[in-house]
Amino acid sequence: MSAVNFFEDFRLGQELVHATPRTVTAGDVALHMALFGSRFALQSADSFAIACGMPRSPIDDWLAFHIVFGKTVPDVSLNAIANLGYAQGRFLKSVYPGDTLSTASTVIGLRENANKESGVVYVRSIGRNQHAEVVLDYCRWVMVRKRDKAASVPEASVPKLSPFVAPADLVVPAGFRVDGFDRRLSGSPALWDDYAPGQKIDHRDGVTIEDAEHMMATRLYQNTARVHFDAHEQTKSRFGKRLVYGGHIISLARALSFNGLANAVFVAAINGGRHVAPTFGGDTVYAWSEIIDKATLAGREDVGALRVRTVATKNRSCADFPDKTGDQPHEAVVLDLDTWLLMPRKAKP
Amino acid sequence: MSAVNFFEDFRLGQELVHATPRTVTAGDVALHMALFGSRFALQSADSFAIACGMPRSPIDDWLAFHIVFGKTVPDVSLNAIANLGYAQGRFLKSVYPGDTLSTASTVIGLRENANKESGVVYVRSIGRNQHAEVVLDYCRWVMVRKRDKAASVPEASVPKLSPFVAPADLVVPAGFRVDGFDRRLSGSPALWDDYAPGQKIDHRDGVTIEDAEHMMATRLYQNTARVHFDAHEQTKSRFGKRLVYGGHIISLARALSFNGLANAVFVAAINGGRHVAPTFGGDTVYAWSEIIDKATLAGREDVGALRVRTVATKNRSCADFPDKTGDQPHEAVVLDLDTWLLMPRKAKP
Amino acid sequence: MSAVNFFEDFRLGQELVHATPRTVTAGDVALHMALFGSRFALQSADSFAIACGMPRSPIDDWLAFHIVFGKTVPDVSLNAIANLGYAQGRFLKSVYPGDTLSTASTVIGLRENANKESGVVYVRSIGRNQHAEVVLDYCRWVMVRKRDKAASVPEASVPKLSPFVAPADLVVPAGFRVDGFDRRLSGSPALWDDYAPGQKIDHRDGVTIEDAEHMMATRLYQNTARVHFDAHEQTKSRFGKRLVYGGHIISLARALSFNGLANAVFVAAINGGRHVAPTFGGDTVYAWSEIIDKATLAGREDVGALRVRTVATKNRSCADFPDKTGDQPHEAVVLDLDTWLLMPRKAKP
Repeated sequence: MSAVNFFEDFRLGQELVHATPRTVTAGDVALHMALFGSRFALQSADSFAIACGMPRSPIDDWLAFHIVFGKTVPDVSLNAIANLGYAQGRFLKSVYPGDTLSTASTVIGLRENANKESGVVYVRSIGRNQHAEVVLDYCRWVMVRKRDKAASVPEASVPKLSPFVAPADLVVPAGFRVDGFDRRLSGSPALWDDYAPGQKIDHRDGVTIEDAEHMMATRLYQNTARVHFDAHEQTKSRFGKRLVYGGHIISLARALSFNGLANAVFVAAINGGRHVAPTFGGDTVYAWSEIIDKATLAGREDVGALRVRTVATKNRSCADFPDKTGDQPHEAVVLDLDTWLLMPRKAKP
Repeated sequence: MSAVNFFEDFRLGQELVHATPRTVTAGDVALHMALFGSRFALQSADSFAIACGMPRSPIDDWLAFHIVFGKTVPDVSLNAIANLGYAQGRFLKSVYPGDTLSTASTVIGLRENANKESGVVYVRSIGRNQHAEVVLDYCRWVMVRKRDKAASVPEASVPKLSPFVAPADLVVPAGFRVDGFDRRLSGSPALWDDYAPGQKIDHRDGVTIEDAEHMMATRLYQNTARVHFDAHEQTKSRFGKRLVYGGHIISLARALSFNGLANAVFVAAINGGRHVAPTFGGDTVYAWSEIIDKATLAGREDVGALRVRTVATKNRSCADFPDKTGDQPHEAVVLDLDTWLLMPRKAKP
Repeated sequence: MSAVNFFEDFRLGQELVHATPRTVTAGDVALHMALFGSRFALQSADSFAIACGMPRSPIDDWLAFHIVFGKTVPDVSLNAIANLGYAQGRFLKSVYPGDTLSTASTVIGLRENANKESGVVYVRSIGRNQHAEVVLDYCRWVMVRKRDKAASVPEASVPKLSPFVAPADLVVPAGFRVDGFDRRLSGSPALWDDYAPGQKIDHRDGVTIEDAEHMMATRLYQNTARVHFDAHEQTKSRFGKRLVYGGHIISLARALSFNGLANAVFVAAINGGRHVAPTFGGDTVYAWSEIIDKATLAGREDVGALRVRTVATKNRSCADFPDKTGDQPHEAVVLDLDTWLLMPRKAKP
């Protein structure tokens, strides 16, 4: 597709082949490092990845996500008012430098808002590598403007999305073994067995976002949503300035989560996620996580899954785990993300 | 060369071998992506390039230009007052990651200004790869300070430069075929046949330039012109602040031009170009283009050339195509660039 | 290690295996170029390096240093008040894209400060590649906070460090030959023979640091020291804002030193170094150098060593070589660095 879509342009079941496939390279990995400073050993050192049975370091799971996501923006969310949520996201195959990613989406739900000025578009997007293997499969919903308030739209259809991905549906990346996983080099002795539901972890560090950084990151994903780039036009907007791509906060929080979750080497699933409030250049982001569940994986005694809720705030430390009061999120919260992470388990004695 | 040249140091016919050859890598391509967000599929995905008969994705043509150009700066334009124009630029061979670029120039014209404080230096610069194959050949002229107003200078000699490159002199990159050119992935169904002289295209998006971005880009090309980097010294200058490298605007406009010219996959020639006004960190750049000519290419029924004039503005939308009144450019215009672009043609029935 | 160490947590002779090995790639090299704009030909062009007997361009020596150094930060200097000095640094083996670096350190000295609120930790850090070959070996000392003023600490032990590395201990990178060293491409005709002790060189250009730049650089090295990243927290600090990583100034000065030292292709040793004053986003850095000694190298008539003291300033030109008055550094000075550089010598007639 290439024209700019408004709410009334979408049809239930519509298939969107998104433009501009993208070969991922070591250059992207270096930029991702420069922009987020992630320290997970498996994605940082080929030697560590090889010791864990993989051919070399795969790219960061969220880098893969952002590239797959970026392709959907010109077709799905260029006229978006808000990115409302994610569900049923699964990382199915590791992406390596040299792989070429492309994305196609299906419209799985449409619901006009009562004010008839916009509506919610639900899409399921699938990212594939150059062998047509699915690397990522996820749903998101987004509020999209109507071109014409009077335009007739399809009957409302809201998809039934799972509140979380079942552990049985999680995939351990091909080849991954834990016998060569060196915890002196990974940065922490703590394994899956050491975490318990209810446990809260302050990720400690804060990182200030510069406009140059979030724009470079977002362009790296070929995500062209104007609100991130055009300060001149944004002076007329509600916030008066550029918005940081929500995925930027996810990657910052993931990098910060090394403090406390250093051995959570893979993101296996996105159960849900909400960009609670906007972030701007100059804001400082902090994060904390709560272990909300843990699961063993069929056929694997060496790797387990942690269901982790990660909350990011702006301009406020997370040392005391700022959270919601009832349904009302703490005023500093900008992200509330629910994922399954994979972590090595203790070896059987 | 290595000393800093003033106008009186140049001689007609002088050959300049510029320092610091440069191996281009996937890292440069990733940075170019992060800085400009280009979405042309052929330069983005190896798989797309291979389907079009090329060994992998070549680098962006303007990235090659900036690297070749950057090498000339220490010898030609470190004392430049203004970069006045370009002509007879031809892209002759695609550059791939792993290629090493070097540049040599010949002084083809010299003309002292009436005030004897500066003069115009015309150079023809040739960029070659590691096989000594010419990848780029272009002329530019630049106003250079004199060290000593009283210094005697050569007799004025102004080269005769073509107003545009003849279509017969355009080169289609080796190997390029259009039968595998997938327009679902390229982002637009529009082909060469669909454009007509006189047609104007608003490239829609605007992008704000941060100082960190233009400095990173310009250093990536090893272009050391001080006006781009030294805010302290620039406080004493006419503008009081750092200037953005003119080539940065060219690359921004090229990336924006994907909106409307997504299938113009190669820049074949630079007919002319003028940096009409300076740009600074914080400015937001927009662009529009006009098709000013189109040409078939001898021996190719599958590819045609579009002569495209691209105008970039700052802090003003291009929705109404701001242009000149007589010879006077619109006050918002910063770049006026005339190129030949190559685009697939419709298959014969 | 992974917990945050305070002064009382260190023990003399303690071995620290630092987390997160790191595979260096062409992407890191491109970012280093974009951030510092270095123009040394050997590190820029594979063809130039191959002509000098090396397999391809090695990475910049300081890039290797920063990566090796970065790994020590979470264990050694997360609670540092100041990075006090360097000694006995030697670059022993070139690092190439594809190499994986890891770092281990030994605590070689400890001395509590009189106020009992902090102490000086001396460490010797060794960076190795994936073949366990030492690429870099250096000492540094850093003032680290105590968690508890009352905590008992080991008896003071201050290591004896050499004031400079002996020329006999300098290593010329494997394979390097000068017969193919092309001075038209390297940017200068000046060789080792052309420099004399006492000679001062103004590196001329100035470069302004943006917060986005130094944060991207520092994250590229996975250096997580909070003072560089958290503007929100830093509002409570002595300076009220983020500090630039001292190594950033070293790399800026090294890139600027191309003006005058273009053929000093390798850094062989760090004799000493002091971050005299902090630098902040918005500051403009200049540098000058003095040749303080020169040495021949056993078994090499083609390469010599220059002992170079490089001084960097902020917001003040180095045209008049600002230096100390007695022991008091000039108020503009931010870095005072003493290194051995390697440079080709004139061929015997």
